[in-house]
Amino acid sequence: MENIKIIIEYDGTNYCGWQRQKNTDQTIQQQLEKGLTLLNKSPVTVYGAGRTDSGAHAKAQAANFYLDVSIPEARIPDALNSVLPEDIICKYAEKVALDFHARYDSQGKKYRYRILNRSFSSVFVRNFVYNIRQNLDFGKVLSILKDLEGTHNFSSFEAQGSARDHSIRTIEEIEFYDKSPEYWIEIKGDGFLYKMVRIIVGTLIEIGLNKRKANLKEILQKKDRSVAGFTAPAQGLTLLKVYY
Amino acid sequence: MENIKIIIEYDGTNYCGWQRQKNTDQTIQQQLEKGLTLLNKSPVTVYGAGRTDSGAHAKAQAANFYLDVSIPEARIPDALNSVLPEDIICKYAEKVALDFHARYDSQGKKYRYRILNRSFSSVFVRNFVYNIRQNLDFGKVLSILKDLEGTHNFSSFEAQGSARDHSIRTIEEIEFYDKSPEYWIEIKGDGFLYKMVRIIVGTLIEIGLNKRKANLKEILQKKDRSVAGFTAPAQGLTLLKVYY
Repeated sequence: MENIKIIIEYDGTNYCGWQRQKNTDQTIQQQLEKGLTLLNKSPVTVYGAGRTDSGAHAKAQAANFYLDVSIPEARIPDALNSVLPEDIICKYAEKVALDFHARYDSQGKKYRYRILNRSFSSVFVRNFVYNIRQNLDFGKVLSILKDLEGTHNFSSFEAQGSARDHSIRTIEEIEFYDKSPEYWIEIKGDGFLYKMVRIIVGTLIEIGLNKRKANLKEILQKKDRSVAGFTAPAQGLTLLKVYY
Repeated sequence: MENIKIIIEYDGTNYCGWQRQKNTDQTIQQQLEKGLTLLNKSPVTVYGAGRTDSGAHAKAQAANFYLDVSIPEARIPDALNSVLPEDIICKYAEKVALDFHARYDSQGKKYRYRILNRSFSSVFVRNFVYNIRQNLDFGKVLSILKDLEGTHNFSSFEAQGSARDHSIRTIEEIEFYDKSPEYWIEIKGDGFLYKMVRIIVGTLIEIGLNKRKANLKEILQKKDRSVAGFTAPAQGLTLLKVYY
């Protein structure tokens, strides 16, 4: 038996997120397990570094699984891609220690949120950006962005519905990139609460639209979801990297 | 009656090209005409700057049409986008002289062909690139690329099936961009023969794969389609701009 770590990319548009579900096989995990079970000729369970929401994407999600058959690691991506749908791609595979676990061994993750700020969308990236038609005041967003860096209780930026011990997380870096007409917010942290990135981005967008005060510190202190902004749509969100 | 010029962007993946057809309404022209007829409340004919092939895309195709109703030009994109499918977008509209014709008045066009040169595709751009898995020798391609610039008889790079007076065209500029792992070939010319860009790119790809001699001048001189390379897939091709 061999433990294989893979790096995968997916367009989440047509999937109900990463996590296996009972009433559909349209999840990334199930599609991977279906493909791998074909290659392995017996059932394979895939362990992801983390879940992604329905409609969210990944440029480099990490996962691991155990194979009974032995396939040279360099040939695994091609073998897997031959049985995966075209919106899920294995970019890299390597054999790892038997006790490696993509989720428990992860040291952190980085996400990108893409905003397209103009009066019309783009046919080429329409599923990967959130199109905001009103002018955003990005200077204002930039002026307070760094207030989120560091170790905080992020309860205000947490959606109900996922088990966790506590709501303290560390944002190591939050960066803003002007790729006009696109604007990217990238957040690197040791871990993320349920929908945390999307609620942070939604709050920043409301600040940029002058719909709320630029008071991120106050929002953090209140530890109350109702004082933060809306949950930005999943389609703008891409998991960029998992750190080990 | 007003003559309106529009600039449109489209993802051609799910369309049978620009040109109106009898057995389907899945063409860009018909989708535009359907939407405009709704706005105009009587039939509208759309004149495109040029046809694009089935599966090819446009970042800035130009077209014109006559409207009976008067809509302020700044409001036309929003009005049109509200009735267009999400893979066709109107980016700009302006009122032009009644005798303006998008095709006859065009001075030239620029196309981009996107090659993704690596062992796996990309979920994000899979419909907009041609994925070549073997290593391409781009140095070789670069060394002969400029042989195509200038005024030539491009019969060797012309597919059968479209009416034209003659096969002499001028390529004003052909450029290569290294966007590794993507590589772009951009061609600007006064006009293009049927499938000319795709046959040029297919020939360059065969040269880059060392499947044929780097003899573009000889291919031009022979004026014979059979001496040039294959027709590169339409999905890699995007109409970038129409010049007036």
